[in-house]
Amino acid sequence: MAIRTRLTEKLGLEHPIILAPMGIAASGKLAAAVSNAGGLGLVGIGYRGSEWIKEQSDAAANVRVGFGFITWRLAEQPDLLELALDRQPTAICLSFGDPRPFAEQILAAGVPLICQVQTLADAKAAVEANASIVVAQGTEAGGYGGTRSTSTLVPEVADLLARISADTLLCAAGGIADGRGLAAALVLGADGVLVGSRFWASEEANVHPKFHQTALAADGDSTIRTTLMDIVRGYNWPTRYTNRALKNSFLETWRGREAELAASVDVETAKWNKAWDEGDGENSNVFISESVGLIKAIEPAACIIARMISDAEKRLASVTAAIR
Amino acid sequence: MAIRTRLTEKLGLEHPIILAPMGIAASGKLAAAVSNAGGLGLVGIGYRGSEWIKEQSDAAANVRVGFGFITWRLAEQPDLLELALDRQPTAICLSFGDPRPFAEQILAAGVPLICQVQTLADAKAAVEANASIVVAQGTEAGGYGGTRSTSTLVPEVADLLARISADTLLCAAGGIADGRGLAAALVLGADGVLVGSRFWASEEANVHPKFHQTALAADGDSTIRTTLMDIVRGYNWPTRYTNRALKNSFLETWRGREAELAASVDVETAKWNKAWDEGDGENSNVFISESVGLIKAIEPAACIIARMISDAEKRLASVTAAIR
Repeated sequence: MAIRTRLTEKLGLEHPIILAPMGIAASGKLAAAVSNAGGLGLVGIGYRGSEWIKEQSDAAANVRVGFGFITWRLAEQPDLLELALDRQPTAICLSFGDPRPFAEQILAAGVPLICQVQTLADAKAAVEANASIVVAQGTEAGGYGGTRSTSTLVPEVADLLARISADTLLCAAGGIADGRGLAAALVLGADGVLVGSRFWASEEANVHPKFHQTALAADGDSTIRTTLMDIVRGYNWPTRYTNRALKNSFLETWRGREAELAASVDVETAKWNKAWDEGDGENSNVFISESVGLIKAIEPAACIIARMISDAEKRLASVTAAIR
Repeated sequence: MAIRTRLTEKLGLEHPIILAPMGIAASGKLAAAVSNAGGLGLVGIGYRGSEWIKEQSDAAANVRVGFGFITWRLAEQPDLLELALDRQPTAICLSFGDPRPFAEQILAAGVPLICQVQTLADAKAAVEANASIVVAQGTEAGGYGGTRSTSTLVPEVADLLARISADTLLCAAGGIADGRGLAAALVLGADGVLVGSRFWASEEANVHPKFHQTALAADGDSTIRTTLMDIVRGYNWPTRYTNRALKNSFLETWRGREAELAASVDVETAKWNKAWDEGDGENSNVFISESVGLIKAIEPAACIIARMISDAEKRLASVTAAIR
């Protein structure tokens, strides 16, 4: 069985599931695993550069994958786009920033542009950029995101696209970790889903095993949106975006003490980085969605996709059977 | 056509739709309209007292309705519960506080207890209170609420109930304003929905017509969670809850100036109250969900329910048809 949508047709996929291009975690290996299982893998570029693009492309050699950029970071090193396009990606995804300066180059290369948006206003900008696919990302997402929730953003963007750009496809992102979330996204009006945290919790993800174990022990009440980790990491994110991570000692220690943390980066950055390298989720950060409470095991990406499709079909059938 | 669920069976309803007991807006008239259309109307008690219970019960005379309390307010005037139970309500809903001190009295009266929760931890407390129905309310909701989103809270609470209390029913709330939202809630694992803002935007709601017009002109990017209005209103809400309203002059003026506002209540409260009475949404507040962008007209509650059911069925059929 399979769920056929405009997304599977447009990108030639078996399943309407795209890997969110998470920095670090969404490696070439994970992207290839998702693509090989019938979805589309997007390698996350994050804060990395040309070496990462080459390495991860090679890791996904002979598999159709795409790349995902943090748009405001790409603006700081625009040459990376050409490097990514040279690899003939299945798609390029731009998130967190104005996609319009890069759209022409992507479209000229014949590559579908995916724009991830957090507001209705963003969605309008994505249409102006001639995005083939708009991803409406809700605040429940892990890592960076905005304030609007998936349940209202998806249908509102669907209405917008129906009105002004009916051929533009729509994916839902944020909080989608199982077949119920996939089915809900489809009935809300999406053509498919972008899945981050559930694939972060896969065997192929580039994630410290200790972070995986920390996440498996957490429930959905355990996450928070914050920007404290950007201070120690020296990332200058636009203020409209915050970062969802598990609540922990680091966040509790520095909550409300941003200036003090900024003044202590010489010491604190080294501590955070060491903790990150060691998989210490109390003194660095585990970036994950509110859907963490729905994740019960670290599994192969193919297993996650197969169950997601199967469970979505079951939920849809079960609810449809309740109509008299 | 109708959608039959455990909720429609349990409460003897035609449709799995409950009116959220919004303060002021969810009057006896609106509750009766929702019940007469096949859902269940819950009169919102809010900050009102015995007179309101009597008046609104009389307005809904001969129609099966229930009542909804703000739990921490009920704790300040617990005698109201007996008054409400004397009216033989179809259900009592407790939101925003510990339901356990009131549960025994409600259950002893043979009345189903509905507990609205904002976290997984709250859901566990609701089960301890022997709630018949747990409402998982996402942050996208209008008015008071928490931080978790509908899309992850609903399936996580569904899993919890399946594990520890399989006979307890589950409703979804927060951002549900049309048939897509209803269908999504059902596939996420809910037995029904609690709908606030969409009924707030009904002909029967006790809402200033100017507030209605202000809401119709807004999109889903236009709301924010804040507590500024509690300062002028003198409400001492527990800090974990914030209040979603349209962004406006009042909120922009006082953002980050909480102490100054608190020191100016003599003047500012009168201004806010006057603006509220006049339907001035810039200088008081329009309390509404992120789903405001999905609301296009003020209509009779019966029309809203009929379309919600019909559209949910269509969405489910359309998505199910995509399974090959």
